[in-house]
Amino acid sequence: MQDVQNFKDDRGIEIQRVGVTNLTLPFLIKTFPPNDYQDYQSVTAQVRFTVSLPQEFKGTHMSRFIEILQPWCKKPIAESELESILREACEKLQAQSAQIRLSFKYFVEKSAPVSQKKSLLDLDCYFEATLDQKFKFELGVEVPFTSLCPCSKEISKFGAHNQRSIARVSVRFKDECISIEDLSALIESQGSQPIYPLLKREDEKFVTEAAYENPKFVEDILRDLILALRQLKGIEFFSIECENFESIHHHNAFASHKEEVN
Amino acid sequence: MQDVQNFKDDRGIEIQRVGVTNLTLPFLIKTFPPNDYQDYQSVTAQVRFTVSLPQEFKGTHMSRFIEILQPWCKKPIAESELESILREACEKLQAQSAQIRLSFKYFVEKSAPVSQKKSLLDLDCYFEATLDQKFKFELGVEVPFTSLCPCSKEISKFGAHNQRSIARVSVRFKDECISIEDLSALIESQGSQPIYPLLKREDEKFVTEAAYENPKFVEDILRDLILALRQLKGIEFFSIECENFESIHHHNAFASHKEEVN
Amino acid sequence: MQDVQNFKDDRGIEIQRVGVTNLTLPFLIKTFPPNDYQDYQSVTAQVRFTVSLPQEFKGTHMSRFIEILQPWCKKPIAESELESILREACEKLQAQSAQIRLSFKYFVEKSAPVSQKKSLLDLDCYFEATLDQKFKFELGVEVPFTSLCPCSKEISKFGAHNQRSIARVSVRFKDECISIEDLSALIESQGSQPIYPLLKREDEKFVTEAAYENPKFVEDILRDLILALRQLKGIEFFSIECENFESIHHHNAFASHKEEVN
Amino acid sequence: MQDVQNFKDDRGIEIQRVGVTNLTLPFLIKTFPPNDYQDYQSVTAQVRFTVSLPQEFKGTHMSRFIEILQPWCKKPIAESELESILREACEKLQAQSAQIRLSFKYFVEKSAPVSQKKSLLDLDCYFEATLDQKFKFELGVEVPFTSLCPCSKEISKFGAHNQRSIARVSVRFKDECISIEDLSALIESQGSQPIYPLLKREDEKFVTEAAYENPKFVEDILRDLILALRQLKGIEFFSIECENFESIHHHNAFASHKEEVN
Repeated sequence: MQDVQNFKDDRGIEIQRVGVTNLTLPFLIKTFPPNDYQDYQSVTAQVRFTVSLPQEFKGTHMSRFIEILQPWCKKPIAESELESILREACEKLQAQSAQIRLSFKYFVEKSAPVSQKKSLLDLDCYFEATLDQKFKFELGVEVPFTSLCPCSKEISKFGAHNQRSIARVSVRFKDECISIEDLSALIESQGSQPIYPLLKREDEKFVTEAAYENPKFVEDILRDLILALRQLKGIEFFSIECENFESIHHHNAFASHKEEVN
Repeated sequence: MQDVQNFKDDRGIEIQRVGVTNLTLPFLIKTFPPNDYQDYQSVTAQVRFTVSLPQEFKGTHMSRFIEILQPWCKKPIAESELESILREACEKLQAQSAQIRLSFKYFVEKSAPVSQKKSLLDLDCYFEATLDQKFKFELGVEVPFTSLCPCSKEISKFGAHNQRSIARVSVRFKDECISIEDLSALIESQGSQPIYPLLKREDEKFVTEAAYENPKFVEDILRDLILALRQLKGIEFFSIECENFESIHHHNAFASHKEEVN
Repeated sequence: MQDVQNFKDDRGIEIQRVGVTNLTLPFLIKTFPPNDYQDYQSVTAQVRFTVSLPQEFKGTHMSRFIEILQPWCKKPIAESELESILREACEKLQAQSAQIRLSFKYFVEKSAPVSQKKSLLDLDCYFEATLDQKFKFELGVEVPFTSLCPCSKEISKFGAHNQRSIARVSVRFKDECISIEDLSALIESQGSQPIYPLLKREDEKFVTEAAYENPKFVEDILRDLILALRQLKGIEFFSIECENFESIHHHNAFASHKEEVN
Repeated sequence: MQDVQNFKDDRGIEIQRVGVTNLTLPFLIKTFPPNDYQDYQSVTAQVRFTVSLPQEFKGTHMSRFIEILQPWCKKPIAESELESILREACEKLQAQSAQIRLSFKYFVEKSAPVSQKKSLLDLDCYFEATLDQKFKFELGVEVPFTSLCPCSKEISKFGAHNQRSIARVSVRFKDECISIEDLSALIESQGSQPIYPLLKREDEKFVTEAAYENPKFVEDILRDLILALRQLKGIEFFSIECENFESIHHHNAFASHKEEVN
């Protein structure tokens, strides 16, 4: 049978990225103590996995992306395993560069502020790794929290509008990357109050009053996050999007910022 | 050329619904004074359009659904035009029954409570019409508003958590259906406060204080909506889903109810 | 502290469903040999969990839904465990009825038709359980496959348009429910050809030719599925939606059918 | 009443972007002859509208974004009107830079290849405008078409798998931007065949055979698009993502490329 992908191409164009997307696979994500008794968490990931394609080839071999990933579904993975995956892709697909993005829901354990009752909070996370001249790894997390409006509090006789908010943060480090657990804890502490799946009445009283005493605009949350991220040892780059699902509007308040850190 | 769809089928199965879905078309939706100077609103609708298929035919003729709809994109439509569309479908496709659902964003004008500044609020709406022995029409609207938690207010020294909420309501009437404008106004008045795209400071003070003085659980909103809908003259059926995007959780509080009204 | 939820309500309305939705939790879904070495699969589920609320109470206790579910995240579950969860909910929330729906991606192992290479295919599934007078369990799966158009094949000199299709099927049984593995195998065999994550060249040749020799309209797939489901021993009810993501259109071809089986 | 947003901020951080997102408004998009009798098309747009915030201010004034946009909902807009909107935003919000993105469905008229029957095809489009030192405008369109696999055709005795595909293309020009109509026509002509909402039997025969005679990998489509875009007079930048919704897989084949053009 002909290997049509291997046919010569004469358009003279090296393709930057070609591969598979919207691929869903189970993975085991390495976790860090003391959040869990196991050292990994089972996740369901959406995958985009691509390589560059030299100008002389008509096409890449799509089935090899699946073959490369398949065995990695059963071994706990993190940064260094993604590097191995990308090296394997460059070799098996004769590529100069390779990129992979895994997007998944990851659970962190939360303790309610007064009752200390434990529950699991889901976070949308991604790992994005690229191998070109050098290897780069980016961690992305989306963390929900509560925000309470300083203007509404200031101008009203009582009460203040508040709402669910999220921050989408991605980070890149010189060496070892921060854990999802540590990054999400840092993020949620910049809101008016963290969010918890399980709150008993004494906890609800606590978070209501604490949020009222800690009003923050979306701009305040963004600025405090910038200050906190700049302090992280070894951080090279971060990007932030904060969004308040305004309780008094159908649209959202939004702020974003990107920074290369020296 | 063969008409394969007209081939005889011997599996003995009349298909309940067959047609097209995920079809996107522009439509003109009839409006009702005094909300607009025009008598229609331009919308972009997602369409599902189906008929029943007698057991003797192998397939329906999918292109006819598009041909039937095309001219209706340029004439203002409401209940009675949908009935015409369904009658045409039954005739042209030799069907016993036909069904159409148009889902679209529709804008209603809101006036801020103090400044009276006007702005446009988008609502997710649908028209669902079915023609079987008789013609039935269902209107669905999804209306956002603010809810403020009675428990949080009661147990806290100050403040109360509040959030964006929505109610998804669908209704069917004996005769003439209520307008989107009137149904959405009725729905939003059951929350702790309505939502407005444009609020100046005096308005924000007003809605903050008014919501604090009108705390409601998702259960309260649902029950008040049930009482209000039962009062509508000629209503035959309603279905409600209320959802609070809890500001202190990552999950939502939910309540639902359906009722045939006599 | 006041228990505001326990306040008396005098609106005289028993609420049909109240609880939490859009809750995300990890679960272990029981699997059936010989598809796996383990007896369960780790999934990430979206949960809607509700109870009825007697007319005399102002509200339900939302935190108890989370407390009830939490321990079940660590034990393999199926039909009977969901019944236990619902019984616990009725008891702890003094409710007459309870309902739970878990929606999750589940993986089944596929072997390529010629090379026999194995890969994991993700299916959108749900478990929906309700406890009222009696307990009912519904399994829902969404299975992708290929469909090839009989009309296009018939009228064209060569080739035939084909596309990815899905069938969404939900079933209820008198006694024991069918497994996800068996139901999805039954569904995909009604398309022109099954879908595989991993296909080598000899497999691609096989599925291309086999699909061309097995052309089917969306109506054919629906009818064959109806015939196949009716044969399942103990089946009480099924509902089917078939959708072809037409390669020659931007909209989809659609057919649906529901049946109570005696 | 206090203007809390105007409070001094001492964190020393200029915010890159702050404003509103997920705002839905109706707009009139200017069209170009000879596609329409009107000179605009009514659309429903999702809006992100932001400005930079100097380090000395605590917050921006969110209600002004809505006030600025409101009157523009009634006038046909294109590139130059977006520049006016951004200039107004910089002035009214004392900002150095402003950005706006409108995402909307836009309809183009298609004529079936043989019967010449006309129908409307919906395209996901966006306008993204930024005003910093200078004004920049980017047009994005997502165009569906059919792709037929060269490998499947080559290795199979008959038939070839084909599927719906899309290309997401964004472009920036030195001077006047290309119209949505022209850009989408250029894009769809790179697939194996364009897509049409309405096809009669003679058209279906035509597109089936024509696609079979024009097989293309996702890589071929991407490369041909690159060559075509480079030819556009005055183009400064383009970005392409091509995706095939593989009929034989549950995942998609993907290729992407970005280029600054001199």
